[in-house]
Amino acid sequence: MSFDDLMAHERQTQALAQVAGRLGWDQETVMPRGAGNQRAEEMGAVAAILHARRTDPRLGEWLAAIDDAALDPVGKAQMRHIRRDYARATRLPADLAAEIARTRSLAHQRWAEARAAEDVAHFLPMLEKMVDLKRQEGAALADGGDVYDALLQDYEPGATAAGLEAMFGALRPRLVALRAACLDRPAPKGLEGRFDEAAQMRLARMLAKTFGYDMARGRVDKAVHPFSSGSGDDVRITTRTNPEDPFNCFYSTIHEVGHASYEQGIDPAYAMTPLGQGVSMGVHESQSRIYENQLGRSRAFTGWLFERMREAFGDIGVTDADAFYAAVNTLQPGHIRTEADEVQYNLHVLLRFDLERDLIAGRLDVSNLEEAWNSRFAADFGYAVDKPSNGCLQDVHWSEGLFGYFPTYTLGNVYAGCLMKALTRAVPDWEAQLAAGDLAGATGWLRAAVQRHGGLMEPREVIAQACGEEPSEAPLLEYLEQKFGALYGL
Amino acid sequence: MSFDDLMAHERQTQALAQVAGRLGWDQETVMPRGAGNQRAEEMGAVAAILHARRTDPRLGEWLAAIDDAALDPVGKAQMRHIRRDYARATRLPADLAAEIARTRSLAHQRWAEARAAEDVAHFLPMLEKMVDLKRQEGAALADGGDVYDALLQDYEPGATAAGLEAMFGALRPRLVALRAACLDRPAPKGLEGRFDEAAQMRLARMLAKTFGYDMARGRVDKAVHPFSSGSGDDVRITTRTNPEDPFNCFYSTIHEVGHASYEQGIDPAYAMTPLGQGVSMGVHESQSRIYENQLGRSRAFTGWLFERMREAFGDIGVTDADAFYAAVNTLQPGHIRTEADEVQYNLHVLLRFDLERDLIAGRLDVSNLEEAWNSRFAADFGYAVDKPSNGCLQDVHWSEGLFGYFPTYTLGNVYAGCLMKALTRAVPDWEAQLAAGDLAGATGWLRAAVQRHGGLMEPREVIAQACGEEPSEAPLLEYLEQKFGALYGL
Repeated sequence: MSFDDLMAHERQTQALAQVAGRLGWDQETVMPRGAGNQRAEEMGAVAAILHARRTDPRLGEWLAAIDDAALDPVGKAQMRHIRRDYARATRLPADLAAEIARTRSLAHQRWAEARAAEDVAHFLPMLEKMVDLKRQEGAALADGGDVYDALLQDYEPGATAAGLEAMFGALRPRLVALRAACLDRPAPKGLEGRFDEAAQMRLARMLAKTFGYDMARGRVDKAVHPFSSGSGDDVRITTRTNPEDPFNCFYSTIHEVGHASYEQGIDPAYAMTPLGQGVSMGVHESQSRIYENQLGRSRAFTGWLFERMREAFGDIGVTDADAFYAAVNTLQPGHIRTEADEVQYNLHVLLRFDLERDLIAGRLDVSNLEEAWNSRFAADFGYAVDKPSNGCLQDVHWSEGLFGYFPTYTLGNVYAGCLMKALTRAVPDWEAQLAAGDLAGATGWLRAAVQRHGGLMEPREVIAQACGEEPSEAPLLEYLEQKFGALYGL
Repeated sequence: MSFDDLMAHERQTQALAQVAGRLGWDQETVMPRGAGNQRAEEMGAVAAILHARRTDPRLGEWLAAIDDAALDPVGKAQMRHIRRDYARATRLPADLAAEIARTRSLAHQRWAEARAAEDVAHFLPMLEKMVDLKRQEGAALADGGDVYDALLQDYEPGATAAGLEAMFGALRPRLVALRAACLDRPAPKGLEGRFDEAAQMRLARMLAKTFGYDMARGRVDKAVHPFSSGSGDDVRITTRTNPEDPFNCFYSTIHEVGHASYEQGIDPAYAMTPLGQGVSMGVHESQSRIYENQLGRSRAFTGWLFERMREAFGDIGVTDADAFYAAVNTLQPGHIRTEADEVQYNLHVLLRFDLERDLIAGRLDVSNLEEAWNSRFAADFGYAVDKPSNGCLQDVHWSEGLFGYFPTYTLGNVYAGCLMKALTRAVPDWEAQLAAGDLAGATGWLRAAVQRHGGLMEPREVIAQACGEEPSEAPLLEYLEQKFGALYGL
């Protein structure tokens, strides 16, 4: 078995993984409503075949026969991914993997019921089982190392809880203070009126193109939850519309365009190989968030968007571009992570990061989770959680067993802060460009500096190379304090 | 390996085959236009994995270990399919299969170029190669038997060229005579006007529901070519619109609803097993054609459709239901199989059936194909072929290597004739029901008599059991001569 033979095998696996993504898109957009059970079986078959390919004992023999040192840098990077994925797949006992898959399905259902009934106790037995299984998984993968760190590798290779904790520890007090100061000031005036949903979709597609999304290799549809799916030449996004809240549609679209542009922007030579996808959740989120926030919610771009919205909708209840900028960037009290603004969002994530590490480490029993959540929330946000669906039952992640996923949201924001600092150096007149609706300079730099590399480097290495310095939380904090200090007259 | 283990393996293979169908639908309806090459690689990976599963040597060991005699009738039928498919897959040498796949892609492209340039000679070298490869394939599959019959089994298990020849030989002279007599009479008046395409799609969806298509387990979209795709709970159809020819949209829709209803109507207990699809191309076509023609183009149903079209479009250029019925069933001179009416359609098919047997048997050299086609066409239709795209370059099938496919079109019409005779006995007032737009009696009988059985019986056996007699061409001939004799006052 040569390296080329191995890569041919790998291409087939990658192609099948793309097919699984296509099925997921289909399910959320166009699948007949009565096809759910059959689709579960179809996706189960693809997952089982992928698992069998990834744990095929012959793969171990092939890997043993290849001398990485003889390969070029791209080949070495491919082998790094293939060896890591194989080690992970084979370390996890098959019966544990099956038990987690079964529990995920049951726990998800139980979580949905508990959330609807505002009944935490109904969910806890399944959560307890899931925490126990994920601890076992982490222990199997950790090979003697830290259990939570082992889980984290699925989402952010190379990251450690200790490293994230240092970063996030510096963020929290300044975000708590900024949040309180802003909410102490009068809230800006919001939009008024009802916004035709077809017109929202037209503007959303125009925004997608403006941010560089290649519509010949993608498409924009409506779905319950916005998402991006696929790699290479077939990267599709979804968005949603609400007649009372056009910003939800527009900023969901720009966010997903960030994810999709990353996948579309990877060097085509890496297509259908382990290098052909975004390298980590954190780097992925850095792209979606810098598109959405540092660029999309900037004074420069909102000035342009204000005009487009007036063209599309007429009177929107705010009458000048400064007021529109303030409306786009309003802080509001609230309990829900996914609805939070740039300042408060990370406080939601930090809460979950701390609690999930305590759960996995056994420092927090699931029976005390609600109390721990609520007291932490009150400490950071200044008011109480009124019901579980606004508290510890609000997110799907833990029911799905996604321990280690949450911190990548804030890591993405930290990376976006670093990248914006570097982008400002590289494209000094980015504000003038965005004010004219021209994103090509900004997104072009991101493509060249980050996106095109795919999985060539380790996640933190991609960001460090793009920025010319090691990533830290400082640029994000400076950006937020400056932007919201000015907006709220602090 | 027990029978249950084998069936679990088989379910996974069937699920993956369904996934391949889903990709095909996606490609023809919603795929981004720049995703073609990547999709080819995705579909190639799924095909390669399916092929590996179907030829897995362990499958042979498992089959050897199972005692069919100990199984119930459904289990015996499953084993019949699995053993037949395995024998076929393993008899075909891997390098021949790969060479055919390669040649198919090249020949298809060459055919499209030749057709566009009206240049038969440009296509002939690729056709010659394809005929040669399919002869080799047939010889490998035939295991000493007839080569063409071996190819035919892919589309119509149990059929023989000799059996079809006897049936078709009885059809041809009477169809030639009926065609000539009808075209000797004045042509009925056609529709007039332009027909809004969105209104066509609304009426097409209504027709689909009227014919019993379950929209909760399917969907109707537009595509260049109408098709039906999928089995069980996810069976999707496409149709097309032409502002000048609404019948194309409506009867394409009803035709595909016939195919789709067959797949939707199979006993759910057979889902994701070898019994869970339509049993042959001929039986499939019997459903699409009886829906489209014997039912959809009947005087009773067209009376109801006439009212719906007037509601949707206002003045359509014909003013009473009898004239509308005549317009639906007009014979026109023409060269193209897919545009032909009920009478002439089978003459197109018989021509291809005779020529393709001669090609495979070596009685006809590809260099003489055009001449053979044109002289046969003149004999049956009474006028000359004016250009190759109206003659031997009009169909895609031979470039794809689909030798043995054509006769199933006419076999489907023959079966539809038999089934209509039986349906008339079982649902004596079907005409009154259809005149009221009620298809439930007719389609319900077809579901119970044919569709629900899936692959349980052999194709001819399904039809014979449904009809209570062995299938023959007589009912189709009687139906056509009676219907068109009355319409054309013969």
